[in-house]
Amino acid sequence: MKSAILSIGTELTRGELVNGNAAWLSERLTQAGFTVTEHLVVDDDEARIIDALARLGASVSVVVCTGGLGPTTDDLTTETVARYLGVPMRRDAASLAAIEARFARFGRVMSPSNAKQADFPEAATVLPNPVGTAPGFSVNLAKASASPECRAFFLPGVPREMQHLFQEEVLPRIADLATHTSHQIRFRTFGLPESVVGEKLAGVEAAFPGVILGYRAHFPEIEVKVLATATDAEAAATLAEQAAAVVAERLGDVIYTRGTSSIGRVVVDALTARKKTLALAESCTGGLVSSLITREHGASAAFLFGAVTYANEAKQAVLGVPAATITAHGAVSPETAAAMAEGARKVSGADYAVAITGVAGPDGGSDEKPVGTVHFAIASAEGTRTEHRLFRWPNRDMIQTIAAYTALDFVRRAVR
Amino acid sequence: MKSAILSIGTELTRGELVNGNAAWLSERLTQAGFTVTEHLVVDDDEARIIDALARLGASVSVVVCTGGLGPTTDDLTTETVARYLGVPMRRDAASLAAIEARFARFGRVMSPSNAKQADFPEAATVLPNPVGTAPGFSVNLAKASASPECRAFFLPGVPREMQHLFQEEVLPRIADLATHTSHQIRFRTFGLPESVVGEKLAGVEAAFPGVILGYRAHFPEIEVKVLATATDAEAAATLAEQAAAVVAERLGDVIYTRGTSSIGRVVVDALTARKKTLALAESCTGGLVSSLITREHGASAAFLFGAVTYANEAKQAVLGVPAATITAHGAVSPETAAAMAEGARKVSGADYAVAITGVAGPDGGSDEKPVGTVHFAIASAEGTRTEHRLFRWPNRDMIQTIAAYTALDFVRRAVR
Repeated sequence: MKSAILSIGTELTRGELVNGNAAWLSERLTQAGFTVTEHLVVDDDEARIIDALARLGASVSVVVCTGGLGPTTDDLTTETVARYLGVPMRRDAASLAAIEARFARFGRVMSPSNAKQADFPEAATVLPNPVGTAPGFSVNLAKASASPECRAFFLPGVPREMQHLFQEEVLPRIADLATHTSHQIRFRTFGLPESVVGEKLAGVEAAFPGVILGYRAHFPEIEVKVLATATDAEAAATLAEQAAAVVAERLGDVIYTRGTSSIGRVVVDALTARKKTLALAESCTGGLVSSLITREHGASAAFLFGAVTYANEAKQAVLGVPAATITAHGAVSPETAAAMAEGARKVSGADYAVAITGVAGPDGGSDEKPVGTVHFAIASAEGTRTEHRLFRWPNRDMIQTIAAYTALDFVRRAVR
Repeated sequence: MKSAILSIGTELTRGELVNGNAAWLSERLTQAGFTVTEHLVVDDDEARIIDALARLGASVSVVVCTGGLGPTTDDLTTETVARYLGVPMRRDAASLAAIEARFARFGRVMSPSNAKQADFPEAATVLPNPVGTAPGFSVNLAKASASPECRAFFLPGVPREMQHLFQEEVLPRIADLATHTSHQIRFRTFGLPESVVGEKLAGVEAAFPGVILGYRAHFPEIEVKVLATATDAEAAATLAEQAAAVVAERLGDVIYTRGTSSIGRVVVDALTARKKTLALAESCTGGLVSSLITREHGASAAFLFGAVTYANEAKQAVLGVPAATITAHGAVSPETAAAMAEGARKVSGADYAVAITGVAGPDGGSDEKPVGTVHFAIASAEGTRTEHRLFRWPNRDMIQTIAAYTALDFVRRAVR
């Protein structure tokens, strides 16, 4: 079945806001078995909203519309739908009571304009919104006998509210229209470029008809999505698992998780499960590795200490790196990295300590140690191991980010 | 003049990618004096692309289209435009030579499918792409005498390439159509919620006809954009400056910069200009403050050392926080924050040291110190000052982020 997404708001057509709602809804509709044929964004203009309703109402079976349900005079969606359908507006007593109660709960006075949010086109089905003030509503957009039914759902533009209403109120009302069903399995990978991941998975789609592989690059990682479509849920799940097994085998340990956990989460979980602790000594990553770990709840069970030793004096004073090591080999060297890791392990008493020292740029590079040169060391009871990389990425932020992921990946591989 | 943005790609209608290009282009077109009436996204489907070209070609004066110019068989944009216009394709020798040269430069062999990227509808103007393989092109989409001219520009979907072509090739070709001109001044603020920023600026738009204020929330900061529109560039700039002066006066030092610098950049610049140095002792922010500072190039001139002392033992061993202080007052207390800041200053020799200790959650809160409680200390030659906040945000990430900004804002205010 065909579906479309309509987003209403001048803040979108002026470019003040990125339309994340359309991507979120598209992904959910695709998974639910619909083909999304278009996204349309129009400004808060009555004539253009009416054109959009007429065109979509005649061409797809499901329209999900976001935005324009607010209390201000710019917010035209509801009355424009009523005008388009040629029906009067009526106030919904239950919605008005809910809005009043919400204001009372937050100790605020409801302004008359908020009462507008309880008005709906006659014959609309109201979709209650327990997480915000503006309820949504649903109508049949197809006019009389001119076209078949078009189920249209009007939701607030606030992502949290929109998502809640879509899951709770929209999905159950369109499930009967889905001509197929999908099952998706996600993998997160680090260490290979997207083109190589794609090459490794060449032929998987052909081997499993009904399976589509999707790639999403969130630098520096690549997410691989296995989307299987079939006529029933069990067949879709089985097909997805079969294809996912091939994907997992071909990519091997480049996959750091199945599901949606971040690499920081995976590292914290691995350390916690093995009752091991971690310390960090960062130079060029400047605290980013610590931050990626401590962003995860429960990190304190595994993470003891991070040192951001930007200045050489700090490397010496805090981590006990000998001045002679820095003088002889430079701050960006395997020797200094090893001394940093060993110092961090000693001062913290952690099981593992990882050090990162490099040239993030744009300044500080040389012929011998160009921008992007990064040395890593990992110290543990088994001794200290060093590695180095030359990251050829165009800016500081990217070099820091990929260096931080590389450090986390070393921990992941050391701990398992 | 009316303009529209057309984005072509099944990866968009399936929700695999957020349409950041449409927002970026909308902002630029609005500033250039165009009204963007819609964004349209369609999948890689010839019939739907043709419908879109026909509809937009008859309703707006400028269409900027992105996507579908790649080498694979999914990429249908160019040939569909030729089919829609009823003209043959022809190969552009200069584009082919540029693509071949690009492959040679990267030491790769050009596949026959890449030659497709040198094919354009007859009579199209080729828009050379020095930053990628796919050139863009421009045609008049309005058919014969059915409608007035519609200048349509087809650009690659890769943001960096699209942006380059828009700036270099598209803007100069549409400047004559702009019916007005705009001038924008941006301010970045931290410390007030969006609603309060809006209240403080109430009436500014009414006082300066032609000025629109835009607010963009990037948690935890609010960007304020002053967009002035007038018939010529000088009048727009003057009007923008007049309104910006009122905005600056009303918001005061909540504005941390005029322009686009991050708060980390502002802090690094302020320290560097005054030849002062900084150290950090982080607990609940877990390295995020260090990371926000060291993300900026040149940070090494001002930033000496950051300690992420998650474990109490690390607070003692590295920063010399007395065990008795932690026992008597707890790790989350003004006393511990002060001792952390003083310890970081001492071990690093920095002019300023800032400490952050708190409960980021979701665990670790108590009645006395609920989740969101954060203590700050700043130590300098003038002594040590402490502050505390209770951040009532719903998750760990938000509490860490706003705590990190608060710490940076203390430095900004201390250093100036």
